[in-house]
Amino acid sequence: MTYLTGMTSILFIPATEMQSVFTRILLQNGFTNDSAKQCAEIFTSSSEDGVYTHGVNRFATFVDYVRKGYVKPGARPSLKNKLGAIEQWDGGLGPGPLNAMFATERAMQISNENGIGCVALSNSNHWMRGGTYGWKAAKAGYAFIGFTNTIANMPAWGALNSKLGNNPLVIALPYKEEAIVLDMAMSQYSFGTMEFAQMENRMLDQDGGFDINGKLTRDPSAIIESRRPLSIGYWKGAGLALLLDMLAAILSGGLSTHEISSREIEYGLSQVFIAINVSKLGDHSAMAVVLENIIHDYHQSVVADPNNKIVYPGERVLEARKRNEKEGIPVLKEVWEEIIKSQK
Amino acid sequence: MTYLTGMTSILFIPATEMQSVFTRILLQNGFTNDSAKQCAEIFTSSSEDGVYTHGVNRFATFVDYVRKGYVKPGARPSLKNKLGAIEQWDGGLGPGPLNAMFATERAMQISNENGIGCVALSNSNHWMRGGTYGWKAAKAGYAFIGFTNTIANMPAWGALNSKLGNNPLVIALPYKEEAIVLDMAMSQYSFGTMEFAQMENRMLDQDGGFDINGKLTRDPSAIIESRRPLSIGYWKGAGLALLLDMLAAILSGGLSTHEISSREIEYGLSQVFIAINVSKLGDHSAMAVVLENIIHDYHQSVVADPNNKIVYPGERVLEARKRNEKEGIPVLKEVWEEIIKSQK
Repeated sequence: MTYLTGMTSILFIPATEMQSVFTRILLQNGFTNDSAKQCAEIFTSSSEDGVYTHGVNRFATFVDYVRKGYVKPGARPSLKNKLGAIEQWDGGLGPGPLNAMFATERAMQISNENGIGCVALSNSNHWMRGGTYGWKAAKAGYAFIGFTNTIANMPAWGALNSKLGNNPLVIALPYKEEAIVLDMAMSQYSFGTMEFAQMENRMLDQDGGFDINGKLTRDPSAIIESRRPLSIGYWKGAGLALLLDMLAAILSGGLSTHEISSREIEYGLSQVFIAINVSKLGDHSAMAVVLENIIHDYHQSVVADPNNKIVYPGERVLEARKRNEKEGIPVLKEVWEEIIKSQK
Repeated sequence: MTYLTGMTSILFIPATEMQSVFTRILLQNGFTNDSAKQCAEIFTSSSEDGVYTHGVNRFATFVDYVRKGYVKPGARPSLKNKLGAIEQWDGGLGPGPLNAMFATERAMQISNENGIGCVALSNSNHWMRGGTYGWKAAKAGYAFIGFTNTIANMPAWGALNSKLGNNPLVIALPYKEEAIVLDMAMSQYSFGTMEFAQMENRMLDQDGGFDINGKLTRDPSAIIESRRPLSIGYWKGAGLALLLDMLAAILSGGLSTHEISSREIEYGLSQVFIAINVSKLGDHSAMAVVLENIIHDYHQSVVADPNNKIVYPGERVLEARKRNEKEGIPVLKEVWEEIIKSQK
């Protein structure tokens, strides 16, 4: 909701309506009944969970990529290589969310037999909201570690030009009937977030990159101008982004960020999905108590600002989901109208 | 070397001499021949690699913990539970570096049969330099992901008091005859680094925490006073630290940061070691080419400051190792004298 405050024309779309509009459009663009339904469901639930940037706000671009042939709606992953509890799959440039969901479920299956399962996926596309796969696995009782590479969009530490992807990392754990899900890119802010702040004429909460003079700044316009977003923890997040790209490329046998970046747009990504069947490692309710105690202690933190709340990763998602289930999913009027118009 | 500049009394100790002094002291403190030798070798090679804070500078404290009974020199890990490619081991409060090396080698063995292997270790101790295990696995041809929890030493984002560990994460990949090794804690700077900067009356390169007025600062004294070090990427590193602690506790069945923090000092840690036998996933020299191309592109970054070099994680370690092999390992005179005196 934050990024929508100050905007006047916001529609509130019920999830069922959003999903049926998405399904209809996907069916008009080469998706089968099943794949249209699943893909629409992923875009809708990301939106309902409050991650609009990788839900409803990204849907038109996704359809555009399908129409231009970068995302192949009929393609499905095929097994390239199997080595015990690791499998390498070729995503065939299919829809990123469907490929990633397949890989997540496959990693879960492998872990049922082996305790841990790893699927490395080459030749796939933007998985949209990484948290989707964390929530999926964790709600089903699995710990999950997943990451993807991206096109270069972030400079190395001390560099002027972008050689690194912001390569999101997802870590999730089952928690009671829900999950604890960390979903973080290696840049402090995405360009999407900075563009929103710019639109709203708002400074970022913290330094988000450098201006053209090489000075750290909270001004989104200055960072968009310099194309120098900040990696989290300066050199640390840059290093982590580099290693995640290397791991993704080596494990999947797919493209690395520098190869993807030589293409006209971002497609053909490499991704890794690791699931661990924690329900077999110990008693489910005992594990819930362990996590409850950790969270209880964490929530006891003394806040610096009494207006703020200390939340764990995923806690705000649950709040957004509840609110949006009740009130509908907030969408900028022009975003929704563009989607509606794209129906044939 | 950075942290030693400005100090006048620096000794340069050859690695063989350092290792034999360490071995002798460990033998005097309940270690067997083999375990003394291995443990001394780990402390020495961390020092030779330039990671003095977790090598020679930490040795006296390590021996002190052994003498006080927190670290049990004769304890060895025992298998608690096996589920396919995951094993849970109890570290028996043995020496952290020996337990961690055991767990790394065991994860490598498991991955020989299963492609991927995971060892979750409870009831262990500080593993000293996390990179040790990354270098070990990667030089032998394995990709490696490892992490440990710690005592609470970092506040949640927006909090005044420390509820999180800085929970180091290690990711490593084989590269030619060497390795690419990322070894990073979730705090921007360790207290050790900040104390060194304070001693040298030097500001940190970047903001490293808050002062008592809640303002971000580069002044190490102000951060040491407030006990509010900064998590990398603000809320992101705090979230990652929380999830790593949860994963370590759940997977190992061991203690979490808040439980460790209720003890008088830091012992009984939980750690996770994942090895992937990448040599079986593809041709070794082809993988080296993939990484070489990534590194080549990364090194092409345009530097903001022509005096700086863009380096990948582990690149500086190789330089330090080469220099220290030749010149001896630099040690503050008083640090070395304390070690020498502790011999019986």
